[in-house]
Amino acid sequence: MTAIAPAQLLTQLNWRYATKQFDPARTINAATWAALEEALILTPSSYGLQPYKFVIVTDPAVKALLKPASWNQSQLTDASHTVAFVIHKAMGREHIARFIARTSEVRGTHADKLAPYQAMIEKDLVNGPRSAIIAEWATRQAYIALGNFMTSCALIGVDACPLEGIDPPKWDAILGLTDHAVVVACSAGYRAVGDKYATLPKIRLPASELIVRR
Amino acid sequence: MTAIAPAQLLTQLNWRYATKQFDPARTINAATWAALEEALILTPSSYGLQPYKFVIVTDPAVKALLKPASWNQSQLTDASHTVAFVIHKAMGREHIARFIARTSEVRGTHADKLAPYQAMIEKDLVNGPRSAIIAEWATRQAYIALGNFMTSCALIGVDACPLEGIDPPKWDAILGLTDHAVVVACSAGYRAVGDKYATLPKIRLPASELIVRR
Repeated sequence: MTAIAPAQLLTQLNWRYATKQFDPARTINAATWAALEEALILTPSSYGLQPYKFVIVTDPAVKALLKPASWNQSQLTDASHTVAFVIHKAMGREHIARFIARTSEVRGTHADKLAPYQAMIEKDLVNGPRSAIIAEWATRQAYIALGNFMTSCALIGVDACPLEGIDPPKWDAILGLTDHAVVVACSAGYRAVGDKYATLPKIRLPASELIVRR
Repeated sequence: MTAIAPAQLLTQLNWRYATKQFDPARTINAATWAALEEALILTPSSYGLQPYKFVIVTDPAVKALLKPASWNQSQLTDASHTVAFVIHKAMGREHIARFIARTSEVRGTHADKLAPYQAMIEKDLVNGPRSAIIAEWATRQAYIALGNFMTSCALIGVDACPLEGIDPPKWDAILGLTDHAVVVACSAGYRAVGDKYATLPKIRLPASELIVRR
């Protein structure tokens, strides 16, 4: 068992904060970044469908273009890596078929045996009530990935800053996306020594206002 | 520094799976559960607003009522704890004011100095374009909490199963919620020895289909 102690989890979650100033001189090394990409891939999603992709931005020229499409937040240009979480615009039968094929490939189950499962997912997402909110359903899955990513970064001592204040259509254009749409982003790297936000006490509502017991 | 090695993060993320069969005889001890509640509270959210609550279900009678409102998934009754992620139905000025008051309390900033910030948040969420999708915005924040929760569980060796296949209005009624609405849930506890899903290979699309570089 390689689980960590609960106290260590909390130490790292308390260590993290929405980093405002990244140290532009520090980059995340390749092995560490590879682990974070793997963590993104391992994100749980509804049915395991992964209705998203992760666009990893490291090119300084692309970062410079994204910054003015993000309220000029300096995280874009200073952070080592930025992840744009993008959803499939046409989330439907084709993607579900790909998932079923992948299931068959990974688990060695004959695709025929998976047909009822495929039909069940289609009934929910393509023909059912969820089809009306399919982009939002996919966005929610992307947000699970965002939550997983920020916690994963914190655990391994990488700083991160979620970016909701961005202009998604502009990002789509800059990133050259046509079949996908940016829903949220997150920069990652290492905090600048002088970032005053690093030491400010965290603002959280008291447990009595957040936790309800039944 | 108490960060963990990237390899340990991946070991735990690979260890986790959507647990189908929990061991009903095993409960999460109080100290471990307290840490998971603290992890939930520490979840990052947009502006830090925390537009949600966490309803912790442990009462066997309540669990029994929720099960038929959840496609009879046995996780509801077998798992030690279930978290219902609920959003504020009336997310607006009042909650923003509470957040500003809390900021003033925690950081000792005079509320007057925070007025421009409060106005800026209101301009975005109450009067701006985001007001039209405010419930969805809050739901996305709850999904960050879900992602953080599942990863936190995995890190400390607690099993979890996200539950999207539930009937939220029925859950609201069973949990006696009037000002809040359930958006998703997650059971936590320990896997039963015989759960065959524990050892199945994970289905994830290859990195080449998920990761895009720019």
